[in-house]
Amino acid sequence: MAKEKKFVEAITSRDEDFAQWYTDVVSKAALCDYSGVKGCMVYLPNGYAIWEKIQADLDKRFKETGVENVYLPVLIPESLLEKEKDHIEGFAPEVAWVTMGGNEPLQERMCIRPTSETLFCEHWSRTVQSYRDLPKVWNQWCSVLRWEKTTRPFLRSREFLWQEGHTIHATYEEAEERTILMQKVYRDFIQESLAIPLIAGKKTESEKFAGAEDTYTVEALMHDGKALQAATSHFFGSGFADAFGINYLDKNNELHSVYETSWGLSTRMIGGIIMVHGDDSGLVMPPRIAPIQTRVIPIAQHKEGVLEKAAELMGTLKAAGYSVNIDDSDKSPGWKFSEQEMLGIPTRIEIGPKDIENNQVVVVRRDTREKIVVSMDEITDRLGDILETIQKDMFDRAKKFLDEHIDTAVAMEEMISKFQAKGGFIKAMWCGCEECEEAIKAETGGASSRCIPAEQEHLSDTCIYCGKPAKHMVYWGKSY
Amino acid sequence: MAKEKKFVEAITSRDEDFAQWYTDVVSKAALCDYSGVKGCMVYLPNGYAIWEKIQADLDKRFKETGVENVYLPVLIPESLLEKEKDHIEGFAPEVAWVTMGGNEPLQERMCIRPTSETLFCEHWSRTVQSYRDLPKVWNQWCSVLRWEKTTRPFLRSREFLWQEGHTIHATYEEAEERTILMQKVYRDFIQESLAIPLIAGKKTESEKFAGAEDTYTVEALMHDGKALQAATSHFFGSGFADAFGINYLDKNNELHSVYETSWGLSTRMIGGIIMVHGDDSGLVMPPRIAPIQTRVIPIAQHKEGVLEKAAELMGTLKAAGYSVNIDDSDKSPGWKFSEQEMLGIPTRIEIGPKDIENNQVVVVRRDTREKIVVSMDEITDRLGDILETIQKDMFDRAKKFLDEHIDTAVAMEEMISKFQAKGGFIKAMWCGCEECEEAIKAETGGASSRCIPAEQEHLSDTCIYCGKPAKHMVYWGKSY
Repeated sequence: MAKEKKFVEAITSRDEDFAQWYTDVVSKAALCDYSGVKGCMVYLPNGYAIWEKIQADLDKRFKETGVENVYLPVLIPESLLEKEKDHIEGFAPEVAWVTMGGNEPLQERMCIRPTSETLFCEHWSRTVQSYRDLPKVWNQWCSVLRWEKTTRPFLRSREFLWQEGHTIHATYEEAEERTILMQKVYRDFIQESLAIPLIAGKKTESEKFAGAEDTYTVEALMHDGKALQAATSHFFGSGFADAFGINYLDKNNELHSVYETSWGLSTRMIGGIIMVHGDDSGLVMPPRIAPIQTRVIPIAQHKEGVLEKAAELMGTLKAAGYSVNIDDSDKSPGWKFSEQEMLGIPTRIEIGPKDIENNQVVVVRRDTREKIVVSMDEITDRLGDILETIQKDMFDRAKKFLDEHIDTAVAMEEMISKFQAKGGFIKAMWCGCEECEEAIKAETGGASSRCIPAEQEHLSDTCIYCGKPAKHMVYWGKSY
Repeated sequence: MAKEKKFVEAITSRDEDFAQWYTDVVSKAALCDYSGVKGCMVYLPNGYAIWEKIQADLDKRFKETGVENVYLPVLIPESLLEKEKDHIEGFAPEVAWVTMGGNEPLQERMCIRPTSETLFCEHWSRTVQSYRDLPKVWNQWCSVLRWEKTTRPFLRSREFLWQEGHTIHATYEEAEERTILMQKVYRDFIQESLAIPLIAGKKTESEKFAGAEDTYTVEALMHDGKALQAATSHFFGSGFADAFGINYLDKNNELHSVYETSWGLSTRMIGGIIMVHGDDSGLVMPPRIAPIQTRVIPIAQHKEGVLEKAAELMGTLKAAGYSVNIDDSDKSPGWKFSEQEMLGIPTRIEIGPKDIENNQVVVVRRDTREKIVVSMDEITDRLGDILETIQKDMFDRAKKFLDEHIDTAVAMEEMISKFQAKGGFIKAMWCGCEECEEAIKAETGGASSRCIPAEQEHLSDTCIYCGKPAKHMVYWGKSY
């Protein structure tokens, strides 16, 4: 629980100790709590409400592209997990195994899903027969479990909430199109609704998903100069289909493999929102995803008529479709302001005797603290404009920060000094071999390949590490 | 997958073999599929879409009463599950145990939650300190796992989806009020939105939830005369609070226990919708919870202009806020009708050359098959009225059926003959002792105590079984 008194204790400064600042915000905004189970979190109302907003927005975007929601079992028999070679190698080391049901040992142990490709494939292998059954464009909202060694709230936990989309298609092209479409859906959602600018591209061999032919990613830059993989979309070709025997008869009664994709976004994005937009006063929520858009705070509320007017104002704003609440507790305005700021509520509306006298209110922006005097008669329209301005300004600030932290390098010394100076993303040429990729990460002190962007630039002819002919321009950065 | 051709094979008649009819509907309406894991289901798009509608409706009703959503871990350490004596006795035999994380055995085994009282209590015991922290009125939407021996789609599966609400309060009265309020929320939701009439009351000692002081239930009657426990709301007093040490300081700095409740409704209700409203043509969805409210079916669609008009009609209805789709496939109208009926879509709108000529459409009710000719100009208004009429008629028919299957008995022979004649609910007096409860169930061939209604009737002075003074009038019935 966030105790009232905690709100006025200053939290650790973001630039002094970013990790501690992050932990302070998570706990003081009461987003989540640790549980008795190591690495598993309790999503508290303030944190879960953000996830609900993310779900509603993203789910709508999914359905506009023809996605249907389903739910598959939480348990995967070991024999099923093992069917796709690369997949089992990737996940076996980090799953939790169920070995007892009731008081009896199971004949075959089952793991709690770390991801559900195998379950979807098992179902489709039994049920898909003809081209008329295709495509399947399915998604499920659920939790998954991965037995991580080190964990951090939202960013890396053993259990986390996500959506996992799984699709099968009659042709290679249609499946590849869907993979790229979902990368775009994620990109639009994160940039438009979360106000987080992104770089986008393909993962290298060593960074792609276990079993995938291609992994498309969108990556964000946190305030500390580290990258966050925000969402990924995987193209499997017919690898899983062949491993599971998912075939269909076409119009001419010829048998073919299906082509498959999967794509996911998780509660990790809540960590992204905190680390991109937060400041030394706490969380700053983008208005479009904020569970509460404005909080009414009466000033000198003991004075006659103030509470009534404040309540009336809240009613008017609610009726106009805003998500709004009021703090009419006996705390001081100072307490109330710092609590509203810690929670990241995009605006607060101050209303006191003088305001009432002048038929006005004072809207205070969370992001800039700018105070805007608005006539009571115009508040329902103006508030919407102010929220949209905040949304836009938050994106623009984050975009400026991202652009200032993208640099290029053509020699290792240059890359090392630039990367160690301010982190961020460094664009550099690469020959495509894994040894160079690892060496670059080692020598820069952690800059791994983030993605190979579609828009390639020709920075030089040769790999920045080995000097052999370059294949790709790659974004490099240290990642969460 | 429901294959097209299956839709015209007649399904088993409901009155001939109810169990087989149920299985046929579930599979031919493509609501769910069995998975590779015994007792775990795949919720297919048609089935999951119903759950999404239930979630949206119920979640709104919850939030109107101040409920906040959260998410707690899927795993419960054994030591935590054991803290409340009755609770562990109730659940230990039917949980699945995780004993390995990655490749290492766990120091303490953990079960997959069968229900989450213990996790909520553990969290509150660490975080609740003062009256300012109360009440907590929380809910989570998740899946739970219970290692059932025999399973049936939606009605009894090892993993199922549900919501579980958990609340703590400063006083006994406030907690009891919340328990009863949630019973009312369930009752209103199920009767108003699912069109399923209910009986309501308290469970007897032997039927109540493991660890509860009181369990309030709402029970529905299926078409085969068997009862379905639709939702339950539990009052725990301070039992869990004391077991977990959840105390708070009041305004005078005195320490008190909190009082707790929990309440849940699951995907079982989808089985209830099928078994109350379905008929020999398949599913019949109540309009308020139907994922699709109407399907447009073009007649003689090869004729010029028909498909265009049908698509235009769908657009108009969508714009007016209806959830509508169209079947413009190359199947025959007969196929299309039987498919729409199998899926239980509350109405279909037939539109052919003659209709277009007369500027009209034909709306066909799924529940009665009544054909209603509606002018094209009035369809957007009229469709809403027709859907509301269907909703009301479906409830009234189910209520009539329920009333016809509630009887009373004052002697065992009477009870046995009446119960074995047509099942349903029998009202009879009971002394309150468990032996009689068991004997009644045995001698009637399965009529267990369903609930003790708040509105008691005095049928006689003595227990129908032992003849000792009666304590309660009880509803008895055979239950799923």
